[in-house]
Amino acid sequence: MINTLFLPELREMLESGNSTELRDFCEALHPAATAEFMEGLTVDEAWRVLQEATRETRSEIFSFFDEARQIEILETQDREQVAQLIEDLAPDDRVDVLNEIEPQLSEQLIKLLPSDDRRETLRLQAYPEGTAGAVMTTEVIKLDESLTIRHALEQLQKQSNEVETIYYLYVVDELDHLRGVLSARDLISSLKSPEKTLRDLMETEPLTVDVHDDQEEVARKVAHYDLLAVPVVDDQHRFQGIITHDDIIDVVREEATEDAHRIAGVEPLDAGYLQTRISQLCWNRGVWLAPLFFAAMLTAKAMERFDERLSEPAWLWLFIPLVISAGGNSGNQSATLVITALTTGNVRISDWLTVVRRELLMGLLLGTLLAVVFLPTGWLVAPELNATNPMNLAVIPVTLLFVVCSGTIVGSILPLLFQRLGQDPALMSNPFVAGIVDILGILLYVMVAGWFLG
Amino acid sequence: MINTLFLPELREMLESGNSTELRDFCEALHPAATAEFMEGLTVDEAWRVLQEATRETRSEIFSFFDEARQIEILETQDREQVAQLIEDLAPDDRVDVLNEIEPQLSEQLIKLLPSDDRRETLRLQAYPEGTAGAVMTTEVIKLDESLTIRHALEQLQKQSNEVETIYYLYVVDELDHLRGVLSARDLISSLKSPEKTLRDLMETEPLTVDVHDDQEEVARKVAHYDLLAVPVVDDQHRFQGIITHDDIIDVVREEATEDAHRIAGVEPLDAGYLQTRISQLCWNRGVWLAPLFFAAMLTAKAMERFDERLSEPAWLWLFIPLVISAGGNSGNQSATLVITALTTGNVRISDWLTVVRRELLMGLLLGTLLAVVFLPTGWLVAPELNATNPMNLAVIPVTLLFVVCSGTIVGSILPLLFQRLGQDPALMSNPFVAGIVDILGILLYVMVAGWFLG
Repeated sequence: MINTLFLPELREMLESGNSTELRDFCEALHPAATAEFMEGLTVDEAWRVLQEATRETRSEIFSFFDEARQIEILETQDREQVAQLIEDLAPDDRVDVLNEIEPQLSEQLIKLLPSDDRRETLRLQAYPEGTAGAVMTTEVIKLDESLTIRHALEQLQKQSNEVETIYYLYVVDELDHLRGVLSARDLISSLKSPEKTLRDLMETEPLTVDVHDDQEEVARKVAHYDLLAVPVVDDQHRFQGIITHDDIIDVVREEATEDAHRIAGVEPLDAGYLQTRISQLCWNRGVWLAPLFFAAMLTAKAMERFDERLSEPAWLWLFIPLVISAGGNSGNQSATLVITALTTGNVRISDWLTVVRRELLMGLLLGTLLAVVFLPTGWLVAPELNATNPMNLAVIPVTLLFVVCSGTIVGSILPLLFQRLGQDPALMSNPFVAGIVDILGILLYVMVAGWFLG
Repeated sequence: MINTLFLPELREMLESGNSTELRDFCEALHPAATAEFMEGLTVDEAWRVLQEATRETRSEIFSFFDEARQIEILETQDREQVAQLIEDLAPDDRVDVLNEIEPQLSEQLIKLLPSDDRRETLRLQAYPEGTAGAVMTTEVIKLDESLTIRHALEQLQKQSNEVETIYYLYVVDELDHLRGVLSARDLISSLKSPEKTLRDLMETEPLTVDVHDDQEEVARKVAHYDLLAVPVVDDQHRFQGIITHDDIIDVVREEATEDAHRIAGVEPLDAGYLQTRISQLCWNRGVWLAPLFFAAMLTAKAMERFDERLSEPAWLWLFIPLVISAGGNSGNQSATLVITALTTGNVRISDWLTVVRRELLMGLLLGTLLAVVFLPTGWLVAPELNATNPMNLAVIPVTLLFVVCSGTIVGSILPLLFQRLGQDPALMSNPFVAGIVDILGILLYVMVAGWFLG
């Protein structure tokens, strides 16, 4: 749904070349709102509107455009003007968008940057996606520890428009080693003693993350400690940048979506669903669907192998999908519960024995539940169940009990195992669970039927 | 994994009653870290350690304990001391924990609060869980618009330790209507003109949320606008409180976990996985597993109905689980993609036609993919496929094409439909999808087999 509230007015202003009104429009609202009102404009129109804004506002509004529009602007508009815009973006946003456009254009634009911005961009680009280094921004307030509170406040005033957050002051030595951190809150409550130095007040062992840390780990730390921003250091404890709360929210959301996709057997998308090319989407789904299909072929093979034992009595084959899906569903539940608990830190690998014990108990309870549901309803599907052999009635309930337990056990152990192996537990667990539990289901079914029906 | 680094020292200090060292331990670290180091202590020990901290630190450390420990402390320790702790908690944390303990105890503790804290607690408790009112905190800096910058800074200094955030100043009139907002950043960059008033500098139309807004909606706004905090107003635009970035991260994580659980067919848990009672967990899983089981019974019924047409030729029945799971897996993928895209705002209801078109195309592509995978491998399962009738070979591939398309269509339409009906799209979509697609799979299989094999 595109917000069309101001579209006619915007188009009129563009047509009549009314610069003053266009500038007012750009400056009046929060840049995120301005970006939203411009959604209905073509890329050319949007770019012309942006030209009327101040450089600062222009880059701010631009950073709220969706990725597809950002890319299109960079790829179609005047090279010089675009380079200026790129220069004005926050360093982390700049790298994000440069990584999305055609590599050749990206190189050209980087060459047009002032030398310090260019160096910084190349440095940030070197960090692999998903690491703290790739998410951090470098526009922060760095001060010397000998500075007095009074002078620190002056610095804050001076720099407040250039940096991403003024809410922490970072104290570094001449080699850029991080010596301490002072929050703006502490600075303000210390204003009554303006001659104290930062050394007296700063926190000397602040929480830090390493440039190579996984962004998910960083998000967990920031969330756990309720921080506004966390400093990023290299292996020599040199201060490299900070990661702020808004980036953390994006990371949390991104990681949650990735987990959900992996759990459903979809390779996580780089862009939004609607922005992803059909061919890409097909690939990201096919790479999971095909192995799952092979697993189903193995299940079919197992059925063929036990053909005779599953077709006599004839009603046995009717319940194959029922048996398989009971295992799949309970396994899916267990895997998802364990994966989300691992992600939020509620469960750790060392809890594995507790988890497996709980899941075995759950399997027994849920298996019994399904068995109890089956007993009075099974004959609706296969009337011959109630006739002849009373042993008939026992086959499906007992199989359900076994299959649901195998689902909960496999579903809980696999994510723990993947986590233990240093892999994302969401990576392969559910598809793996499905494949393993399906075949297990057939084997258990054959076994139980053999017991009761000879 | 419990951090046991300081456990022996802590126990020794407790035994020797070394108050000074215990106080130092409580005050030295970030309260989140202190809480972590105390994880290995019993509840009684932890409470005795907390008694040595200042009241402020005590409540901060307490708020970083996990919920189970918080509840146990409240339910087992000295009533008067506990009431004092409750009084020191931030209003939103206070309400959270009071809602978790036994109602009788909660009432008693509320009665022991000072009258203004009591009134506030009762007011906050009245907001239903999941609304902005239930997440907000009320400890904010409220100022009058006639105040000068100089005086505002003084107020900031005075109140900085009592409020949750100093990074926004809220300007209200005498009836508590929200008139404007000024960020600490703007305040600091305006320090050169200290005689200006807040009226001159404040943003007069700040973004607000309503006390009754859904927390998920609030989280989306804060994330979209990169805010540190958002003011909450009632229907008369009276200022009620704020929601801060750290609560937003919790909301985003909580909602993502809820979605993941619903997608896997688990009623979302109120507490962590390990803290949830087995009986509760059994209920939250059983309520989904049982209906899914009924759906599988319907599938079995459909198989019984078409018994003769699915058992001749004999290899037909071997591929029933394969056909069903192809539909289920692709439906699961589509449902999850659409649900996560709706949650993150990437897809809106008005995009439904685009989504369905894309999913139909995806179904055709993925169905073709599976058909192509099947052709050279199918005879491994059923050698008779390649013999006699060349029509044999067509049945499964054509069925796969139909079934995968039905999966992607049903999987994408159901979440959109639920969203349209004002329901959580994650609420019933995937289990529904599974149930519907399974039966559709059987019907399509019978139909296609009928075409080719007569």
